[in-house]
Amino acid sequence: MTAPEALIFDVFGTCVDWRGSMTREGVALGQRLGIEGIDWVAVADAWRGQYQPQMETVRSGQRPWVTLDTLHREALDTVLAQFGLDHVPAAERDRFSDGWRRLDPWPDVPDGLHRLRSRFLLGPNSNGNIALMVRLARWANLPWDTILGAEIAQAYKPQPQVYLRSVAALGLQPAEVMMVAAHNGDLHAAAACGLETAFVTRPLEHGPGQASDLTPDGPFTIVATDFNDLATQLGC
Amino acid sequence: MTAPEALIFDVFGTCVDWRGSMTREGVALGQRLGIEGIDWVAVADAWRGQYQPQMETVRSGQRPWVTLDTLHREALDTVLAQFGLDHVPAAERDRFSDGWRRLDPWPDVPDGLHRLRSRFLLGPNSNGNIALMVRLARWANLPWDTILGAEIAQAYKPQPQVYLRSVAALGLQPAEVMMVAAHNGDLHAAAACGLETAFVTRPLEHGPGQASDLTPDGPFTIVATDFNDLATQLGC
Repeated sequence: MTAPEALIFDVFGTCVDWRGSMTREGVALGQRLGIEGIDWVAVADAWRGQYQPQMETVRSGQRPWVTLDTLHREALDTVLAQFGLDHVPAAERDRFSDGWRRLDPWPDVPDGLHRLRSRFLLGPNSNGNIALMVRLARWANLPWDTILGAEIAQAYKPQPQVYLRSVAALGLQPAEVMMVAAHNGDLHAAAACGLETAFVTRPLEHGPGQASDLTPDGPFTIVATDFNDLATQLGC
Repeated sequence: MTAPEALIFDVFGTCVDWRGSMTREGVALGQRLGIEGIDWVAVADAWRGQYQPQMETVRSGQRPWVTLDTLHREALDTVLAQFGLDHVPAAERDRFSDGWRRLDPWPDVPDGLHRLRSRFLLGPNSNGNIALMVRLARWANLPWDTILGAEIAQAYKPQPQVYLRSVAALGLQPAEVMMVAAHNGDLHAAAACGLETAFVTRPLEHGPGQASDLTPDGPFTIVATDFNDLATQLGC
């Protein structure tokens, strides 16, 4: 392996614990509105469950590219209806949806990223839009050099143009960039574009019963247990 | 004035001293190649002199949008020919052109930006492309949240879409964003798009004989002597 010049990252699940954080946001909403008897973990899972089908409407060309902020807010209306929560007012829906900007990092992430930053350019290559990623970076202490990903490509992963547009924005060749993710599919798509790959295990992304992405299923450049392990393996 | 949520910045001349830095790069080139009798300040000025005419070819639709890295490298060939330096080899030309990624900040800029970062989202709204801006940020210690500007708009200031695309990428309204620049024209264009404006005086950008932009010529939201003064006026 030639050392990469830049590392680009999946964010939801890889850098931040969306499930635990959105559950916390749901519990807080319930307390504010006096709602009882709701499984807020199930709400978070149902909300995230809308993610791939929503993006597929964009990837297929059924609708023009819109931000993930927009998709999150639309999906929330669907999910609240499923859980019998039609009475939640619009301002509270907006606040709940803004919770995606307040996702906590996995414990190793801030330290690991600051170590990696000493040798590499860093940026998210996420399906999250710039406004979302910028605020999440402030919240979770993610020291990005710039926000890359879906918005500058006007496409959604795993479409190849997302990886290739991020590489081009950095003025680099694919082999000079390493994609870091906790998801096999993301890394296979990056590898197909010529990027180096690092699989980081996040066995609790979907909770204790997680069945997917527990182990790497491809010949990735690096396999790491967390971001500190990744930093060590990359000589930081 | 309502406090803005984000500040976006002109970079060349406002944040960094391109003229002094590119003169230094020219002197170093001359020393490496044993070139004597060249006025490297004049080379820097001639190089920068290509900037507006080059961008005009993009703004007018004469050529598709290309990065400022590309325009810089093209202009260098023209400038070297003007100064009788046709013998400079390609690798040295590339290195000289990369000098635009090694521009020193004005002395107040790193401290001022770190103060401003405590209250505002910060990003460059420059005609420089992402690859250039990311490396310049590392060199000059500019703590941007993300790189905005020409590349995400695929246009060049003062075209209004550059200001409006940066505002939209932040998920904000124009009145929630303040454009900071040392150039009246840049601020007039931003104001016309509804942004707030801050004029920062940089009386030495063009050297001791500077004749332009010595004073603000419009009703800008703030006029500041440097970035520390700007931070103080904005309560940081």
